[in-house]
Amino acid sequence: MPSYTAPVKDMQFLLHDVLKISETDIPGYADLDRSFTGAVLDEAAKVAQDILTPLNAVGDTEGCKLENGVVRTPKGFKEAFRTLSEGGWMSLDAAPDYGGQGLPYLMHTAVNETFVSANMAFNMYQGLTHGAYSAILVHGTDAQKTKWLPKLVTCEWTGTMNLTEPHCGTDLGLLRTKAEPQADGSYRITGQKIFISAGDHDMAENIVHLVLAKAPGGGEGTKGISLFIVPKVMVNDDGSLGARNAVSVGKVEEKMGIHGNATCVMNYDGATGWLLGDLHKGMKAMFTMMNEARLGVALQGYAVAEPAYQNAVAYAKDRLQGRAVTGAENPKGPADPLIVHPDIRRNLMEQKSFVEGARALTYWGATLIDRAHHGDAAADGLIGLLTPVLKGFQTDKGLEMTVQAQQVFGGHGYIEETGMSQFVRDARIAQIYEGANGVQALDLVGRKLATDGGKHVMAFFEMVKAECKAHDSDERMAGFVEPLKAASKQMQAAAMFFMQNGMKNPNAALAGSYDFMHLMGHVCLGLMWTRMAKAAHAALDSGAEDRAFYETKIATGRFYMARQLPACAAHLARIESGAEPVMALAAEAF
Amino acid sequence: MPSYTAPVKDMQFLLHDVLKISETDIPGYADLDRSFTGAVLDEAAKVAQDILTPLNAVGDTEGCKLENGVVRTPKGFKEAFRTLSEGGWMSLDAAPDYGGQGLPYLMHTAVNETFVSANMAFNMYQGLTHGAYSAILVHGTDAQKTKWLPKLVTCEWTGTMNLTEPHCGTDLGLLRTKAEPQADGSYRITGQKIFISAGDHDMAENIVHLVLAKAPGGGEGTKGISLFIVPKVMVNDDGSLGARNAVSVGKVEEKMGIHGNATCVMNYDGATGWLLGDLHKGMKAMFTMMNEARLGVALQGYAVAEPAYQNAVAYAKDRLQGRAVTGAENPKGPADPLIVHPDIRRNLMEQKSFVEGARALTYWGATLIDRAHHGDAAADGLIGLLTPVLKGFQTDKGLEMTVQAQQVFGGHGYIEETGMSQFVRDARIAQIYEGANGVQALDLVGRKLATDGGKHVMAFFEMVKAECKAHDSDERMAGFVEPLKAASKQMQAAAMFFMQNGMKNPNAALAGSYDFMHLMGHVCLGLMWTRMAKAAHAALDSGAEDRAFYETKIATGRFYMARQLPACAAHLARIESGAEPVMALAAEAF
Repeated sequence: MPSYTAPVKDMQFLLHDVLKISETDIPGYADLDRSFTGAVLDEAAKVAQDILTPLNAVGDTEGCKLENGVVRTPKGFKEAFRTLSEGGWMSLDAAPDYGGQGLPYLMHTAVNETFVSANMAFNMYQGLTHGAYSAILVHGTDAQKTKWLPKLVTCEWTGTMNLTEPHCGTDLGLLRTKAEPQADGSYRITGQKIFISAGDHDMAENIVHLVLAKAPGGGEGTKGISLFIVPKVMVNDDGSLGARNAVSVGKVEEKMGIHGNATCVMNYDGATGWLLGDLHKGMKAMFTMMNEARLGVALQGYAVAEPAYQNAVAYAKDRLQGRAVTGAENPKGPADPLIVHPDIRRNLMEQKSFVEGARALTYWGATLIDRAHHGDAAADGLIGLLTPVLKGFQTDKGLEMTVQAQQVFGGHGYIEETGMSQFVRDARIAQIYEGANGVQALDLVGRKLATDGGKHVMAFFEMVKAECKAHDSDERMAGFVEPLKAASKQMQAAAMFFMQNGMKNPNAALAGSYDFMHLMGHVCLGLMWTRMAKAAHAALDSGAEDRAFYETKIATGRFYMARQLPACAAHLARIESGAEPVMALAAEAF
Repeated sequence: MPSYTAPVKDMQFLLHDVLKISETDIPGYADLDRSFTGAVLDEAAKVAQDILTPLNAVGDTEGCKLENGVVRTPKGFKEAFRTLSEGGWMSLDAAPDYGGQGLPYLMHTAVNETFVSANMAFNMYQGLTHGAYSAILVHGTDAQKTKWLPKLVTCEWTGTMNLTEPHCGTDLGLLRTKAEPQADGSYRITGQKIFISAGDHDMAENIVHLVLAKAPGGGEGTKGISLFIVPKVMVNDDGSLGARNAVSVGKVEEKMGIHGNATCVMNYDGATGWLLGDLHKGMKAMFTMMNEARLGVALQGYAVAEPAYQNAVAYAKDRLQGRAVTGAENPKGPADPLIVHPDIRRNLMEQKSFVEGARALTYWGATLIDRAHHGDAAADGLIGLLTPVLKGFQTDKGLEMTVQAQQVFGGHGYIEETGMSQFVRDARIAQIYEGANGVQALDLVGRKLATDGGKHVMAFFEMVKAECKAHDSDERMAGFVEPLKAASKQMQAAAMFFMQNGMKNPNAALAGSYDFMHLMGHVCLGLMWTRMAKAAHAALDSGAEDRAFYETKIATGRFYMARQLPACAAHLARIESGAEPVMALAAEAF
């Protein structure tokens, strides 16, 4: 069974050496000193390692079962869920007014990473609850907040997002679920929703479904959509639970992975619901959940690759096979460990440099979210631009890297017993849900690049330029600055190509959207590695004790710059080939 | 459930327009005219579509079960296996002396593709039998051939390869299975083998295991290894079956995919075996099977991507979601089909151009095998060089493309019901077995490039150069010649880098081996698309009726050249960064 050790030292390096969080002006960050975050992360690590990791294979093997209309979660999930709830692990960044601990989103992110790495399927129950909490916090009335939030904060009740229907996923304008207004101000909700993660389970007293539906008078397409709060069990005015609502589970899906999370078909048969936010403005309210969910999924991309990497490393050090081409390194043994072989190194370095780079990007993104929560419009615009990149790039690479980790095990990786297959099968969903990655690319190129007149992407370019300029005279940083400059220029050339050609023919931009998302992902990770290298050099210069740790950071970053940024040129070439090769065929020719 | 239609027209295009097989001087090819191959392929298509396709999901869902020491295959497998055996589908290219039909290996390859596309796990039973047949044909005594081959040819008996042991896969020098010589000339085989595909099942009367073991006096490492024929059931002199041999199934593995094929732990407890080929020269004999198996796996790489692509296309045409950015294409419907969206097109074009390019490369490779079988040393050297590229590149891309096909389905692709997950899970094994792809890269760069003084790779470069030169003045071919020239130059630069740096530091070459395998894969597919485009133009020039078919070929090739060959520059840049970034860390730093 795979093991997992939370990389607290790497996390602390990011929080304090790179992001220097307690020195920033972000409200609440001043308290986040090294010893405080270290204590929180050490405790989170114990929970992740001791409670959640052992349940990961259990969840995969047992899955969730629908029995007499109720979903049974895998053995041990219920107890673990209660333990985490009681330990306060699910309310870290929730508002103190509703029972939360009021920590920044950044701390939620870092803690959450350890839980996702340990058990992605398990953590989704909490993740979706967090999304429902946020939507009600932002869009709910005071009465709604008082009624729903305290129990969501503790995860005594959990939450869901109900968007997809059998005939529509991305294109929500087509949805058919109806909301009929009742005399008492409530709505009768009728329709079928599919792919509802954590749609039902036996770990909480109640489930708060947030459901998109069409109420009368809203017009065609997405304009007619509203968002409703539809509880599994009705809640009386005194907060006690009442009768079951008319919502039921039609089916639990058999999936490729995340078996520990119940993916449900939900049937709403005249269920009672209450409007959340404005009538006919449901898409806006849903996007509060969706944007947060996308960042959560971006985190999954690298967080599931982390334990896969750790286990690949352990296997590569342990498994004796062949000899180093430069001479035996384990001459007394029957063979050398796999890790002596250059191609195994290449494989592991790709994993390591991706996971650490993506972690940096995700934590930086979390600081932007915290800034945005406090009204920083520039940060809000920047994270809006970056969200599709984090989601699409990090989850694509996440799958690739779990595949590579599995590959280190050879045939043993293909056997379910080693657990390497589960990482791959679990990682796969992150490319699909919360907006398939092609939709992320469309959002990025079709919408985000031009948001506010292109202001945010220009700010990003300026930021990269400033970073390069800051180290121009530092010879030690040449291996970072030069590749980052080149990659950033390639990204600018691609954006320019879109501007020059996209007006005449929108397909010319959209045919290159997926490549642009990856090109920008590499630039982002290049920027992160440049910042990490700078921080590592600074630590070394100031006489840090653990020199090997910082030297390893620099070497890992050099690998990323030398070996991964060359992909940018290929992405640009593909983008510049335009729409013609992509759109040449008639549909019948496929 | 996914459907599959054998692409007979594409196959015929390759055989007759591109390879012009009946006009070549390869013995046996003169009979392979368009109507003959068309008739064979049409019949194979029926078998694949009507018998094997419906059993693909059955095999995945039911899997193979060990019951009272016997492996039970999924429902319907046994009957289908008998039908194919009786229909002669398993003996197409076997020697007439032993009951085969004596067709070229190329025909076996083309027919085999349809069976693999329809049901990869099922076809492995036959594929391994073919390998055992080949090993005995080449290395067996006349008596052995008479005894074993006729039943293997018909698949009344099946075969296996037994290499891997718990502690060694790639590094066979470590193996421990013992062979003790007996007075009657036989050997007593004792040891445990793992990951034995088709190790046991209920579809044949007997199973002929070819087992690597160490006989006394052979020295250390791989030098001491010999190959043995070890039947499941002893065979009397009159050909009738005798007692059970001392070989048993210890376990059937739970795997990520290919559930329909029984992957067994095999225990040899003093089993009776007979030496095949020369004593202590077992590796050489095993490589007869292994090289053939690698080409079979290379075929799996694209053959499993073919039905995944077909089903992705069907879904993209059927599923209505969103509107074309250039204006509604299905204005009367609620939305446009997915296929109008540029990024869906990009995705599908990548699949289509890969599958068709890889098919061309595989069929061309099969013609080289047929030439080599008739003593053509140049062809033998060339296919030796190409084998790791076909195996590594085509199976890596095969996984990528099944993932992309699954992605077209959005959330529906992640649900097992649609069958898209099975393609991904099945495709994954092809990167691992018969030499993990990292080992293929090592074989290519560490061995094959330098074979016979580099003669074969030089011949390959000359071939590409000649192809470019032949179309230099043809303006219509510019979109092919220029990218192919550039990619070929990049490949030569990479080979040059290895020569200049690999002598001083072998790691400098091996750190780039994986990239080189992919770089060469792209050059190979670029060469194939150039040849296909030339053939399509020739067909159009000669007034071929189905113009759309040939125009589609040219457009698909243009896509490959414009959108996929740019990867070569990135691979070269990675290679030229050398060993340092890859090898910089101490093992403890991972």
